Amino acid sequence: MPLKPDLPQPEAEQQRVGYAIVGLGQLTVEELVPAVRTSEHAHVVAFVTSETEKGLALARAVGLGENDVYTYDDFEKIAERGDVDAVYIVLPNALHREYVERAAKIGKHVLCEKPLGMNADDARAMVQACGNAGVLLMTAYRCQYTPEHWAARDAVQNVKLGKVKLLDSVHVQVEDHPEAWRLKKELAGGGPLVDVGIYCLNTMRFVLGQEPEWVFAALHQPEGDPRFEEVEESLSFMLGFPGGVMANGLTSYGARTTSTLRVLGEKGSLLMDPAFPYVGVSLSLTDEQGELTPSFPTYDQFSREFDHFAQCIRQGKRPWTPGEEGVQDHVVMDAIYESARTGQVVKLKGGQGKDAFRGTAPEVPGRD
Amino acid sequence: MPLKPDLPQPEAEQQRVGYAIVGLGQLTVEELVPAVRTSEHAHVVAFVTSETEKGLALARAVGLGENDVYTYDDFEKIAERGDVDAVYIVLPNALHREYVERAAKIGKHVLCEKPLGMNADDARAMVQACGNAGVLLMTAYRCQYTPEHWAARDAVQNVKLGKVKLLDSVHVQVEDHPEAWRLKKELAGGGPLVDVGIYCLNTMRFVLGQEPEWVFAALHQPEGDPRFEEVEESLSFMLGFPGGVMANGLTSYGARTTSTLRVLGEKGSLLMDPAFPYVGVSLSLTDEQGELTPSFPTYDQFSREFDHFAQCIRQGKRPWTPGEEGVQDHVVMDAIYESARTGQVVKLKGGQGKDAFRGTAPEVPGRD
Amino acid sequence: MPLKPDLPQPEAEQQRVGYAIVGLGQLTVEELVPAVRTSEHAHVVAFVTSETEKGLALARAVGLGENDVYTYDDFEKIAERGDVDAVYIVLPNALHREYVERAAKIGKHVLCEKPLGMNADDARAMVQACGNAGVLLMTAYRCQYTPEHWAARDAVQNVKLGKVKLLDSVHVQVEDHPEAWRLKKELAGGGPLVDVGIYCLNTMRFVLGQEPEWVFAALHQPEGDPRFEEVEESLSFMLGFPGGVMANGLTSYGARTTSTLRVLGEKGSLLMDPAFPYVGVSLSLTDEQGELTPSFPTYDQFSREFDHFAQCIRQGKRPWTPGEEGVQDHVVMDAIYESARTGQVVKLKGGQGKDAFRGTAPEVPGRD
Amino acid sequence: MPLKPDLPQPEAEQQRVGYAIVGLGQLTVEELVPAVRTSEHAHVVAFVTSETEKGLALARAVGLGENDVYTYDDFEKIAERGDVDAVYIVLPNALHREYVERAAKIGKHVLCEKPLGMNADDARAMVQACGNAGVLLMTAYRCQYTPEHWAARDAVQNVKLGKVKLLDSVHVQVEDHPEAWRLKKELAGGGPLVDVGIYCLNTMRFVLGQEPEWVFAALHQPEGDPRFEEVEESLSFMLGFPGGVMANGLTSYGARTTSTLRVLGEKGSLLMDPAFPYVGVSLSLTDEQGELTPSFPTYDQFSREFDHFAQCIRQGKRPWTPGEEGVQDHVVMDAIYESARTGQVVKLKGGQGKDAFRGTAPEVPGRD
Repeated sequence: MPLKPDLPQPEAEQQRVGYAIVGLGQLTVEELVPAVRTSEHAHVVAFVTSETEKGLALARAVGLGENDVYTYDDFEKIAERGDVDAVYIVLPNALHREYVERAAKIGKHVLCEKPLGMNADDARAMVQACGNAGVLLMTAYRCQYTPEHWAARDAVQNVKLGKVKLLDSVHVQVEDHPEAWRLKKELAGGGPLVDVGIYCLNTMRFVLGQEPEWVFAALHQPEGDPRFEEVEESLSFMLGFPGGVMANGLTSYGARTTSTLRVLGEKGSLLMDPAFPYVGVSLSLTDEQGELTPSFPTYDQFSREFDHFAQCIRQGKRPWTPGEEGVQDHVVMDAIYESARTGQVVKLKGGQGKDAFRGTAPEVPGRD
Repeated sequence: MPLKPDLPQPEAEQQRVGYAIVGLGQLTVEELVPAVRTSEHAHVVAFVTSETEKGLALARAVGLGENDVYTYDDFEKIAERGDVDAVYIVLPNALHREYVERAAKIGKHVLCEKPLGMNADDARAMVQACGNAGVLLMTAYRCQYTPEHWAARDAVQNVKLGKVKLLDSVHVQVEDHPEAWRLKKELAGGGPLVDVGIYCLNTMRFVLGQEPEWVFAALHQPEGDPRFEEVEESLSFMLGFPGGVMANGLTSYGARTTSTLRVLGEKGSLLMDPAFPYVGVSLSLTDEQGELTPSFPTYDQFSREFDHFAQCIRQGKRPWTPGEEGVQDHVVMDAIYESARTGQVVKLKGGQGKDAFRGTAPEVPGRD
Repeated sequence: MPLKPDLPQPEAEQQRVGYAIVGLGQLTVEELVPAVRTSEHAHVVAFVTSETEKGLALARAVGLGENDVYTYDDFEKIAERGDVDAVYIVLPNALHREYVERAAKIGKHVLCEKPLGMNADDARAMVQACGNAGVLLMTAYRCQYTPEHWAARDAVQNVKLGKVKLLDSVHVQVEDHPEAWRLKKELAGGGPLVDVGIYCLNTMRFVLGQEPEWVFAALHQPEGDPRFEEVEESLSFMLGFPGGVMANGLTSYGARTTSTLRVLGEKGSLLMDPAFPYVGVSLSLTDEQGELTPSFPTYDQFSREFDHFAQCIRQGKRPWTPGEEGVQDHVVMDAIYESARTGQVVKLKGGQGKDAFRGTAPEVPGRD
Repeated sequence: MPLKPDLPQPEAEQQRVGYAIVGLGQLTVEELVPAVRTSEHAHVVAFVTSETEKGLALARAVGLGENDVYTYDDFEKIAERGDVDAVYIVLPNALHREYVERAAKIGKHVLCEKPLGMNADDARAMVQACGNAGVLLMTAYRCQYTPEHWAARDAVQNVKLGKVKLLDSVHVQVEDHPEAWRLKKELAGGGPLVDVGIYCLNTMRFVLGQEPEWVFAALHQPEGDPRFEEVEESLSFMLGFPGGVMANGLTSYGARTTSTLRVLGEKGSLLMDPAFPYVGVSLSLTDEQGELTPSFPTYDQFSREFDHFAQCIRQGKRPWTPGEEGVQDHVVMDAIYESARTGQVVKLKGGQGKDAFRGTAPEVPGRD
């Protein structure tokens, strides 16, 4: 006597697109594994880690066996696993390129955490490697797959706010551990900009569908703080988009978590606050009638990524956020660091046309 | 190179407390199965359903086999399953008693959806059956296991609001399908009161830790609406608690989803709005200083229940919301229906002491 | 070089409708005098008070002279003042009738604070006296003159929420002074119900445009609290409106200030929270699209009343909230107290047709 | 039978500090005149305008006579008015200096609208003129007189947020009229920066109590829009404060009204949104405990200014926002325009010590 006899039958686990997850940090344990277990089209079938004990425990926790846990040295053995369609790289940034290239070499599609690489050149090499190998590469920009961020983009693209004039975005959090790899330049490639500030940059590019033409930036690296011997603590940047649209961004590892995005248009504005959390993203649209807070269906951000890439693999489509999208953020971030170093405006080439670096739009819950 | 090498190792799936889920309606498919797969101490090992195809699909979707799906007729075969520690009854209310009793008879602990039964006598029989069989019985009151509801209770119990004077709660939603079992009196036992209004009643009792001494109620059953031929559309009730505290409640199957709880004290007030959703429960506390919206860790309501009952089973403890807690809501709801029928105040016996019908307090994320 | 050369010229002070304010309590000093000084069509030209010093100070503060301050004994001398068109009665409830009748006798129109009288009979006599004298009588229900409350009413009347099913309203505040006249039965006529709970009742009647057919109520009067020797501390009431619509209300002098109004309809709901403050009334409308918080022009509630009554006087129109509107609240409140005393439902006659007791709709800022 | 027999007696109108208001634009008519009429220590006794009809109407509306209205040519006749203690200059920016100097010459204290002048040199001359004449000069920065902005400042100064790292502020609105004086460079001195962006700048300086050391800025002046032939439409600026604190600002005449201020600290953050309206300023403070929205007493921003300056005049004290405070904003704004013109960072001298350009702190309602 079921409530809804006509619910779609869930896809059998063994028929789904199989992922090997490479790297068992907090994101993998707390977010990715739960997400993939409740996704529609994906499941996890293997783990790669240097911590064998941890890997075995996690495998047992999800019903996998000891043969499903690989060391980094054994990575290439995954080639033999017919049930592994894709690998998901969740390693420190400095290792992204190596593992993307190794995955490409064994013919596995690759979903790679952001930032894609250490800089634009590094990231371009990854795109090249995947292209040569004929495998798909997707940059894991979770905030380009949620109904809230798409509603923000739609409001801009459909000119609901009138012509957009200005944008403003903040993403800061506290990094307390001086020994964290995120604070080591050769492991992370940069500081808060490449880790959290990238959300401001990436999401502003996403909602506009356009690329910045110039940047200016300044940063602060406090003396005597062991956390910030190699990377900036805080960074402020300004972007010039086509048509005179200007965008401000703030990022830091020294301030309590805040994440916002504001778009100011002639007839209305939109606010996401918080803009970038895993759960509880909020969007409101304000115009002369008042403030509207739209309703959205519930969803899991990481499931959205697992499923989009699974569908791209099955259908042979280019992901919405392919490697090229990851390269472009590096191009801008490289320019931001250059501006902060020189104190000068840095010009950028921009992109050709709307969504110059993106692929097939994802299915978004509740979006027509 | 993990982010946090010291994360607690997840419990191996096969060592967890095993549940058989009885009934594969929407709640099971959309909430319970995802929740149990990401719980700490529980896993699902069997399904019981009359819809074998659906059961097999769901089993495949979570990595179980065809032997893990049972028909209602075969229910007793679960007795042989050593890996089934508990059954979770997710059936129309009229079937709760039968399956609780059958589970008790085969020595399985029972987690049962709310309302526990069809009325107080029905529910008492279930408590009796489990007591006789020496198995634990827990009523699945998810809103007694969240950090938000516990923070509300703590604010009341610790007199942060000053002496409490009044409470107010609303829980309404639209039931559109005339054929839904929830609208059939002999399957549901009542209308919106026993399904959604029970949250108002149960949560007001929970935050106060006390029992009502009298009730008054009125209901509306519109003529000519095929949905409400057997049960009420809307119901309003008033409760008198010890010390002159009065509480108002509204429930309906005819109004768009709203759920709130307000507690008004001498020095401050608290508001939960929404109060009873699966995700996004909100709490704010107001006093002369202003309004505080506390932060809470993320959690899954259904995982909280699975894990609490799992721990009770392992440790032989009485659940926080045992069968007796379910009985008491029926006692009050029986009185509410009597008052609505007679137009008279109905007196109640109340309970002896604080939390008269509750067991061992659960662990609550973020609560000291 | 003005910004807006076409602004309407303000009305000259001496051409406006002149009010004598009777009673110089906190409401007069802090709200009414500032309001009337910034109204469009009204000005204050005289004060009546037993505290001559205070009256003279207030007169000086607004540029009036000592001849503009009258004692209660001298009240009738206002008859000679051609510049006094109306008196505004801001006295303890027990004195409303006397001063309304004295004002009527000297041919002055009367704006009277709520509640209109001590009970329905008392209030009916006031209506009678003004009718006989041919002067207008308006009950000062400020929440029937704001854009927010009218937007709430319009949402109900235009069926934006679908068919309305349930209403819920709270108005509580702390009365700390045992000696306050509001706590003396013979001065106030009742407790929090007649002072703050009346807003719940009056506004629910206003948004529905209908009258309750029955009431049930319970109250609490704590023993040993010197504040509540004569009147209730807290009161809960339930109203039955035509068509099975039910409404709950809570009021108290023992709980920290909270004021809300909620209307629950088939397709959407509205919330005012806070619902009844002088400044900062908030309205939101929720339906399946999300939550809309409309924008409203700024305004002063008391100026709205001064100006509406001034226009009624000039144009010879019946005010939107005439004496009859005040009588009807007393009819319901009398029944509420009777129900609380007897523990029984009390039936009411209701009203004939929509807005049975109201007059000419006011101009509302921002409403078409 | 008053509610509160011990209310402070209001100050008699004729004993208050008398203001002549110079310029009868929208701000004067809609805000200043109502505000001064309900202030504690101030009253308006004269108007200066070129629109005699409008002046007479406004005078009549507040109970003044035709002798209380002066033309600009007759401005110096105010010297003879012993009841005029101060003049309030509410004219286009280009006229501020002339009228401040004329007022100083006739020995009247001067309250002058922001921005103080056309640029730093212009403003310095005004400070000089008032200093020479021995009259007080106050810049009308209303957002340095409210309880909300002081609570924000106190949170920063008392290190409630931990060490401050970053600030962000937005103030934009739509200017629709191509012929508005605010869009004429020789009348306004600049575009949205000097009119609304000045609030971002001024309030960030106020909460920090410090001065920026460098600025970078970019602006957009769209071609073909008749409104922006002389001044910028939008402007983005970045400020560097002592200790590596960075602040971003956005201002525009082309985007729908938004005003915010965000301060990001190590342990918490504060948000004002809206930050700069006349009514309804909102403040919230967030830390690991959650989000606190403090309560504030009601007040009128313009009354706060009238009363502060009145008290300064009576007590011979330097206003909290003297002319020097207005000069300093011009110094920074001059640098912002220079940076936008050159594309280069512009260094500033900063200020000596905390609150380098401020005077006696005002009384703030509800602040200890």
